[in-house]
Amino acid sequence: MATVPLVSDEEACDAVKAVFEDIRITRGTDYVNNFWRALAVDPAQLGSVWAEVKAVMTSPGELDPLTREMIYIAVSTANSCAYCAHSHTAAARAKGMTTGQYRELLAVIALAARTNHLANALQIPVDGVFDLN
Amino acid sequence: MATVPLVSDEEACDAVKAVFEDIRITRGTDYVNNFWRALAVDPAQLGSVWAEVKAVMTSPGELDPLTREMIYIAVSTANSCAYCAHSHTAAARAKGMTTGQYRELLAVIALAARTNHLANALQIPVDGVFDLN
Amino acid sequence: MATVPLVSDEEACDAVKAVFEDIRITRGTDYVNNFWRALAVDPAQLGSVWAEVKAVMTSPGELDPLTREMIYIAVSTANSCAYCAHSHTAAARAKGMTTGQYRELLAVIALAARTNHLANALQIPVDGVFDLN
Amino acid sequence: MATVPLVSDEEACDAVKAVFEDIRITRGTDYVNNFWRALAVDPAQLGSVWAEVKAVMTSPGELDPLTREMIYIAVSTANSCAYCAHSHTAAARAKGMTTGQYRELLAVIALAARTNHLANALQIPVDGVFDLN
Amino acid sequence: MATVPLVSDEEACDAVKAVFEDIRITRGTDYVNNFWRALAVDPAQLGSVWAEVKAVMTSPGELDPLTREMIYIAVSTANSCAYCAHSHTAAARAKGMTTGQYRELLAVIALAARTNHLANALQIPVDGVFDLN
Amino acid sequence: MATVPLVSDEEACDAVKAVFEDIRITRGTDYVNNFWRALAVDPAQLGSVWAEVKAVMTSPGELDPLTREMIYIAVSTANSCAYCAHSHTAAARAKGMTTGQYRELLAVIALAARTNHLANALQIPVDGVFDLN
Repeated sequence: MATVPLVSDEEACDAVKAVFEDIRITRGTDYVNNFWRALAVDPAQLGSVWAEVKAVMTSPGELDPLTREMIYIAVSTANSCAYCAHSHTAAARAKGMTTGQYRELLAVIALAARTNHLANALQIPVDGVFDLN
Repeated sequence: MATVPLVSDEEACDAVKAVFEDIRITRGTDYVNNFWRALAVDPAQLGSVWAEVKAVMTSPGELDPLTREMIYIAVSTANSCAYCAHSHTAAARAKGMTTGQYRELLAVIALAARTNHLANALQIPVDGVFDLN
Repeated sequence: MATVPLVSDEEACDAVKAVFEDIRITRGTDYVNNFWRALAVDPAQLGSVWAEVKAVMTSPGELDPLTREMIYIAVSTANSCAYCAHSHTAAARAKGMTTGQYRELLAVIALAARTNHLANALQIPVDGVFDLN
Repeated sequence: MATVPLVSDEEACDAVKAVFEDIRITRGTDYVNNFWRALAVDPAQLGSVWAEVKAVMTSPGELDPLTREMIYIAVSTANSCAYCAHSHTAAARAKGMTTGQYRELLAVIALAARTNHLANALQIPVDGVFDLN
Repeated sequence: MATVPLVSDEEACDAVKAVFEDIRITRGTDYVNNFWRALAVDPAQLGSVWAEVKAVMTSPGELDPLTREMIYIAVSTANSCAYCAHSHTAAARAKGMTTGQYRELLAVIALAARTNHLANALQIPVDGVFDLN
Repeated sequence: MATVPLVSDEEACDAVKAVFEDIRITRGTDYVNNFWRALAVDPAQLGSVWAEVKAVMTSPGELDPLTREMIYIAVSTANSCAYCAHSHTAAARAKGMTTGQYRELLAVIALAARTNHLANALQIPVDGVFDLN
C-alpha cells in the first residue's frame, strides 16, 4: 500500500523509462525496486533523486561505497524510515557488509541513540573548546 | 544552562572521580567535557555510558574508529542532538577526519534525509526481495 | 493490529456513537476510519480530538482547507507517522489536491529534510537579523 | 558556534563567491545568511542546495511561494531544526505571511503533532480504502 | 530569540491577560514563563493549550502529577524540544521529583532510545501475540 | 520481514541460548518475542541489552515497574518505533496498566507532542529561572 500507484514498466512515460533503464544498467540487474516506482509519480524528482544517488553513493571519493551505505542506514534508522532501513541494509550487504560490520554499525547506532537522548534530556551546554569560529 | 549542575572535579564523589580519571587517561588530555560533568548526576549511568563508549568506539573491530565517529554524527544529526553534533564532529576531527571526508559524510546525510522523507511521505511498501525470513 | 481493539458501531458507548455520527454528517460519508475507532478507547480524547480537527481543518480562515491538509502531511511525514501519511494524503486528494500540487509538496518536504539535516549537522548559529525581540 | 568556520566574503573561493553573488541578486539584498556561509565548507553541496532552493521555492507552479514556505516551516519544526525554523519563518514573513496565517499554520502543526503521536502510540492499522494499488 | 515577540503584561490583550492571570493563580506564583508569552501570538491557541495543560496535568486521575511530568519529559526529550526539557524538568522538581527518580527516568529514556533504534534498524516484525484485534 | 533472520531456539548458539533461557525464567513464560530473536544477530549486544533491560526495568527503585513501562511507551511513540509501541504496551498491560492509566498516558503524550511542536516552531528562549548552573 502506498499513497501513489507504483508505476510498472508498461505504464512508465519516456522520462521514467529512461531512469528505470539507467538504474538497471548501473546496478547490473533487471529489478527496479518500489522506491523508484513510487517516486515516478514525479518524473522530474525521480530523475533528480536518482542522479544524486548515483553521484553521492558511487562517485570516487574518500569514503568507500560501503561506508556510505552504513551512514545511510544510520540516518534512516534515526528517521524511522522502514523502507530505507530495508533497502539500504540490502544494499550494504550487496556491497559486502559482513555480519561483523553490521554488528558494529548497530552498536554505534544504539550507543549514539542512548547518548543523544541523555544529552537532549540534560540539555548539556556545548563546550567552548568545540567552537571553531 | 543544563537541567542539572555540571559536576566539577572538586564536587565529584569517588565513583565520578574514577570515571573522570579514566577519561583523562584514555584520551590523553586533562579536559573532561560537559557531557560527563552533567551525566555525573547519576554515577552509575556515568560509569555505564563511559564503559560502553570505550568498548563501542575504540575496541578493535572491522570498522575503524573514524568510521564509527561518522556513523555517530549521522545518528546525532537525525536525532537533532546539538551537543552530540558538536562533540562528535570534534572527535572525528581529532581522529583525522579530512574536509573531504566531512563533505562526503554531509552529502550522504543530506541525501538520506531527502529519500527518508520521500519514502515516509509515499509510504512505499517494502519489496519482497529484501526479506530474509 | 493496534494496541487497542478497534471499536465497532455496535460496541460504541453513547459518547463514542455521538462522535461517529458527527463524523459521518460532517464528511457526508458512512465510513468512519480506523483512527477514530482506535481513539475510542478514550471517549473524552476522541471527542476533544475530533472537535479540534473540525475547528482547525475546516473553520473559515486565511489558509484554504487543502493548504492545511498539505501542511498536515508535511508534519506527519517528518514525524514518520504511517497512518497519518495515508489518511491525510487521501484527505488532501478528496479536497482536490492535483498531481502537480502533490509533486510540489513532495519537493518542498524533500528539500526541507535535506537542509534541516545539513543545518543540524553543521549546528549553524541563528543570524541576529532573524531576531524579533 | 558551528562545526565549521563560517566563510566570509573575503575567504570565499570563486565557486562560493558565485553562489553568494547569485543569492544576493536573486533575493535583492546584500545579506547572505549563515546557512550559506557554513555550507560553503563544501562548494559543490552549496551550489547544489542553492540551485534546488531556487528551483523548488521560487519556480512557477501550482503552490504559491508562501504556501511552500509554510510547508517548509512545518517540516523544520517536526525535525526540530532551530536554524530552519528561524530562517524560514523570517522568509515566510518576507513573502507576506500574516499573523492570521501564522496562527493557522501553528494550529495545524500542533494538531498534526497531537494526532501523529496518538496514531503512533496506538499503532492504528491503515484502512484498506486508502490503498491506491 | 524567538520567531515572535514575547508578550509582556503591558502588551497583553484582554484574552491573553486572562490566561496569564489564571496561570498565576493556578501555580501560586507571579512568574509567567516564556512559553506562554510566545504563544500569546495567538490568544485562542494560548487559551486552548493552557486549558488542556490544566486538565491533563493536574486533574484528578490514576496517574499522579509527578508521573505525568516525567512522561512529558520523556516525550520532549525524544522530540528534541530544548525548551520543554528545561521547563518540564523544572516542573517535575517543583512537584517533588527526587534525584533518584530523575536518575531512573533518565535510565529508562536512554534504554528506550537504544532499543527503539535497534528495532527500527532491524525492522523487527510485530509478534502476533501482541495483537488485540 | 526483518533485516536479519530471526533466530529460532534450534539455531541459537550457546550465548544466545543462555539469554533466551534467562528471559524465560525471568518472565515466567516460554515465549521469547521477536526483538530478542532478531537481536541475536549479535550475541554480545543481545546479552548487553537484556542485562540493561533487567536492571533498568525491574530492579528495586523509586519508580514502580509500571511507571517505567509507561515512560518507555512515551519515548517509543515519539521515536516512531512500531515494534516498541506494541511490545511495551503489552508489557505495561501485563504489569497491570488499567484502561484509565492508558488514557492518561495517551493524553500526556498527545499534549507534550502538541507543545513540543509549538515550542520548536516558535523557538522560545529558555527562561533564566530554569538554570541550575
